[in-house]
Amino acid sequence: MFAVATPGRVLKRVLVGRAMRSDRLGDTLLPKKLALPVFASDALSSVAYAPDEIFLTLGLAGGALALTNSWIIALCVVVVMLVVVASYRQNVHAYPSGGGDYEVASTNLGPKAGLTVASALLVDYVLTVAVSISSGVQNAAAALPFVRGHEVIVAVVLIALLTAMNLRGVRESGSAFAIPTYLFMVSVLGMALVGFYRHYFGDLPQAESAGLELAPEPGYEAIGGIAMAFLLLRAFSSGCAALTGVEAISNGVPAFEKPKSRNAATTLLLMGLIAITMLMSMVTLARWTGIKYAEDPAQQLTRDGVPVGDGYVQETIMGQVAHAVFDNFPPGVVLVSIVTGVILILAANTAFNGFPVLGSILAKDGYLPRQLHTRGDRLAFSNGILILAGAAIVLIIIYDAEVTKLIQLYIVGVFVSFTLSQIGMIRHWNRHLRLERDAAVRSQMMRSRVINAVGAAMSGTVLLVVLATKFLHGAGFAIAAMVVLFFLMLGINKHYERVRAELRVSDDDLDAQMLPSRVHAIVLVSKIHKPTLRALAYARATRPSKLEAITVNVEPEETKALQDEWDRRDIPVPLKALDSPYREITRPVVDYVKSLRSGHPRDVVVVYIPEYVLGKWYEQVLHNQSALRLKGRLLFTPGVMVASVPWQLASSEGQEERFDGPTAGSVRLGQ
Amino acid sequence: MFAVATPGRVLKRVLVGRAMRSDRLGDTLLPKKLALPVFASDALSSVAYAPDEIFLTLGLAGGALALTNSWIIALCVVVVMLVVVASYRQNVHAYPSGGGDYEVASTNLGPKAGLTVASALLVDYVLTVAVSISSGVQNAAAALPFVRGHEVIVAVVLIALLTAMNLRGVRESGSAFAIPTYLFMVSVLGMALVGFYRHYFGDLPQAESAGLELAPEPGYEAIGGIAMAFLLLRAFSSGCAALTGVEAISNGVPAFEKPKSRNAATTLLLMGLIAITMLMSMVTLARWTGIKYAEDPAQQLTRDGVPVGDGYVQETIMGQVAHAVFDNFPPGVVLVSIVTGVILILAANTAFNGFPVLGSILAKDGYLPRQLHTRGDRLAFSNGILILAGAAIVLIIIYDAEVTKLIQLYIVGVFVSFTLSQIGMIRHWNRHLRLERDAAVRSQMMRSRVINAVGAAMSGTVLLVVLATKFLHGAGFAIAAMVVLFFLMLGINKHYERVRAELRVSDDDLDAQMLPSRVHAIVLVSKIHKPTLRALAYARATRPSKLEAITVNVEPEETKALQDEWDRRDIPVPLKALDSPYREITRPVVDYVKSLRSGHPRDVVVVYIPEYVLGKWYEQVLHNQSALRLKGRLLFTPGVMVASVPWQLASSEGQEERFDGPTAGSVRLGQ
Repeated sequence: MFAVATPGRVLKRVLVGRAMRSDRLGDTLLPKKLALPVFASDALSSVAYAPDEIFLTLGLAGGALALTNSWIIALCVVVVMLVVVASYRQNVHAYPSGGGDYEVASTNLGPKAGLTVASALLVDYVLTVAVSISSGVQNAAAALPFVRGHEVIVAVVLIALLTAMNLRGVRESGSAFAIPTYLFMVSVLGMALVGFYRHYFGDLPQAESAGLELAPEPGYEAIGGIAMAFLLLRAFSSGCAALTGVEAISNGVPAFEKPKSRNAATTLLLMGLIAITMLMSMVTLARWTGIKYAEDPAQQLTRDGVPVGDGYVQETIMGQVAHAVFDNFPPGVVLVSIVTGVILILAANTAFNGFPVLGSILAKDGYLPRQLHTRGDRLAFSNGILILAGAAIVLIIIYDAEVTKLIQLYIVGVFVSFTLSQIGMIRHWNRHLRLERDAAVRSQMMRSRVINAVGAAMSGTVLLVVLATKFLHGAGFAIAAMVVLFFLMLGINKHYERVRAELRVSDDDLDAQMLPSRVHAIVLVSKIHKPTLRALAYARATRPSKLEAITVNVEPEETKALQDEWDRRDIPVPLKALDSPYREITRPVVDYVKSLRSGHPRDVVVVYIPEYVLGKWYEQVLHNQSALRLKGRLLFTPGVMVASVPWQLASSEGQEERFDGPTAGSVRLGQ
Repeated sequence: MFAVATPGRVLKRVLVGRAMRSDRLGDTLLPKKLALPVFASDALSSVAYAPDEIFLTLGLAGGALALTNSWIIALCVVVVMLVVVASYRQNVHAYPSGGGDYEVASTNLGPKAGLTVASALLVDYVLTVAVSISSGVQNAAAALPFVRGHEVIVAVVLIALLTAMNLRGVRESGSAFAIPTYLFMVSVLGMALVGFYRHYFGDLPQAESAGLELAPEPGYEAIGGIAMAFLLLRAFSSGCAALTGVEAISNGVPAFEKPKSRNAATTLLLMGLIAITMLMSMVTLARWTGIKYAEDPAQQLTRDGVPVGDGYVQETIMGQVAHAVFDNFPPGVVLVSIVTGVILILAANTAFNGFPVLGSILAKDGYLPRQLHTRGDRLAFSNGILILAGAAIVLIIIYDAEVTKLIQLYIVGVFVSFTLSQIGMIRHWNRHLRLERDAAVRSQMMRSRVINAVGAAMSGTVLLVVLATKFLHGAGFAIAAMVVLFFLMLGINKHYERVRAELRVSDDDLDAQMLPSRVHAIVLVSKIHKPTLRALAYARATRPSKLEAITVNVEPEETKALQDEWDRRDIPVPLKALDSPYREITRPVVDYVKSLRSGHPRDVVVVYIPEYVLGKWYEQVLHNQSALRLKGRLLFTPGVMVASVPWQLASSEGQEERFDGPTAGSVRLGQ
């Protein structure tokens, strides 16, 4: 379709802003103070659901287990986090180009490994959006009761808003996300300080749920050693959700201000330390305030032996801690709730930054459709953003926007890519060590190699744990999605290769260059109106070897009237009527064109189609449909070329100007 | 898009069958014994929900009212039915062309009246599908418990199946619907006979719900005279749902075998008598078996003063009667349940026969997009069928497939069209009486005029009653939809008129016929591959006044490489690179073309675009996207024509043959 509506254009301008000039790309780079909120919101925000998942999983075996083991689980997560952050600092320095794990794996382990990482990351980006938004909505529901029961629709609307924001471009997103992210850090760390202070002075009250008992789920009443170990590992797996987003920075190095690698590494370390502090603070406060948190609160939580039932609303751990710490200062509770809700929704933005960049790299390498490589208006990768949003919306609808369900699919992808990336880094250092002679540089490289080796071992172990504990709970679905993506991208790549080979010009093949001996021109006529007359005039202007007008005889009376008017107007081109027993337009024309070709295979047939062009897409829908269909069909016929002769109706005026519009650059740069 | 997939083609063949030849239209005509089930299933099936709605509305004021008044209400409905059937027998004779109410109103009352009728009928066709399917699913849920709770999805699937069946064409539908329709008539009338027999011998048991009390809804406990009259009228309005579908035959006269009008009139009368018999039988049996039927059964129905609560499953009246009549013969109950479910689902088929025919007539008159006028494969009007199905699905989703909610929107449209059609008929006879001199014919006409006048008065009165009693319950929404449709169709008509006026060739206007002085040809080049070389060859073959190749300089290195290869290959056409600061393809080309035109306004510019054609639509998605966008844009520029030069890749082979396919006729007629 070739008509684009003015209202659409205006809407796009309002939502997306003006287009940006290519040489302004440098202006959208991020200083550290903006890069931290843009890339860290994912990793930091997981403090809003990772502790919940740890407590809830442990709670399957009853309240005592959660109380005694939650901090050990959290500590394990912290250790993994430290190792992964240290490893990725090496990546960022070694590969400043922003390909991140995909580039590292492709370069060092081959394209299949790279594609595996890419599939994993694409799936996890989608899950980041789905989990963060769902958790954000869950938090919001605590503060805003009207959200409850409409979680899915609220989540979908939020994703739509995020999509619109991101279509505006990176810089503006950075600014928009800085304030809430910093506010979140200040609020959570402030709450932790107040909590610690009150605990130290014996003044910290118990949480609301502390008075309840947490009964084990059926089947978990008295579990033995192996089952218990399995449960602990499962809790650890869920807790590892805190690690997603660490790799975001390594994918986004080019967005940093110079020195890019150093700034990225510093930001990474800072992010890791803040995330660890928050996670441990929340787990500690949750234990001190005696929170009981259950997967199935209505049945598992009991008061004096009686289940609390469906009426009980289980607040998130963040919410319950806030209520306890700020029991004498309600504004504190409100602040924490709001910023947590906001940060979670913004966390999805990390994926909105990372996904389209990765998609564009994959498109450039021929693994995804080329459209994804094209930067849209405003230098953002519009197509990738739209696909990400669409996939996340589908997941949210399937899983009812429930964090606990979605989290089972999460993390697998991240740890697949962590592991392959770190293994790739070991090879990277091996290769460079073979060439490097400078002792200082060599020792630096060997130190890096050790860090990456530890990282690889650690991520690999976690990956196995995650797979073992979560495969049946949903991780299998995530794996399946990755496998499908993997083969899809491989197929696309093969297709592009095949087409390229088929189109390549060999020196002995002259078919494509052969000059047709004669040009046979056909003008399609349905009525005698201005577009038809123009098409006839243009066709005559090209002075073809033979020229005739063709009409399809669907209604004999109409055809007769047309021929009479043709004669009356004395049009200097013969008009031929083609019979159409099936009342079709396309088939008789295609058959006729083929019959022309079969007589003279070295001729070229030019079919002139008169079209009228209207200004609005909804007007366009009312016209030209059979012309479009015919055009598509003729292109399958060898030796045919199709010429569209447009007649611009009054309503189309100015549309062509407006389409690309005065871009921002042309105004701001005084063009 | 010009690629159509083989899998899609095969799927279409399987679901829709082979295409049919135009001159086989006669073969799809219906004998009376097939026409009755095809056109009458709507009117007959309403016996499955019309009594329910009468009882339920009366039951708002408690059980006593339903018991005493239901048969009076039913009798009123029967009277209206008789009058309407008699009236429409006049229509069928006077207008055998199948335009039905639309044609009658347009011809006699003017196009605006015709459009009003058309809007009303279109809305009511959609509601027929939605109500019948919802009621069918409700019936099915009684027999198949797993349907309960999934009514919406089951309804949507059923509509999809019906759509596929109807895309196969009229005749096959007729055969498929005959058996269940006749089975339904036999079952229901058989059940009535058994019921009457058992009642006569004092052997008819009470229904299950006879033991319950039916309490009035809050606000209806002790209503006065006016409120009571209003309630009775509302029950009557709901009962009039039994009348929808009567007009279907008048819209479908051309589908009958000859003598068309007489066969149609006979079928109409037969249908009316069967419908009346069924309705009265059901109401009578419902009263004899003491059925209590409530809008809100959980609260209104009480056992010993205690509400039965949400656990109570209220079966339809048809189901309860069957249980009572066949208490000693369970297979009877099962048979009635199944055929009722099936007939309701098939009733929607009446709309599937009527809607596309009306849509096609409206499209021919320029009130709807022209595509609706085109008969698709198999002589059915595919586009109309698809639109009807889509709209019904939307309604079902909005109203949760609940019959009682949907029925509030129903009937308005039918009575709008009844009324206008009958008023039109009065005018029709007036006009003919002015010219007719033969006394016998005149007296026949005057008799018809009296019948139509009574019909008009009766329908008009019912319309007022329906509007008064149901406007706030949902009929307002139906009216709003009709108003929107009315203005939409008026707008489309105005648009077509405006375009036609703009395209008309006046004798003093020579702009369209002006022969361009020179032809300036441009070949777009992105890479040097076979499509590019062919485009260059074709362009050269047309011997333009000036020929040049154009590339857009997005990546300077690539452009440099292209130019080097161009020189190396010694291509005899100059290559020009256009700068593109915004990495766009479209804009620089459009600007360049305009600059050419501005220097030589009497020239025509031909832009040759090399395209490669692939066999599968999903392959097509991976290519040519920027070419498509550019082509659309160039058509807005005056004095430009766009020539697509296709290069058929190996995968496209045979696609063009397969597209229109070997049509049914060509095989069956030995072509």
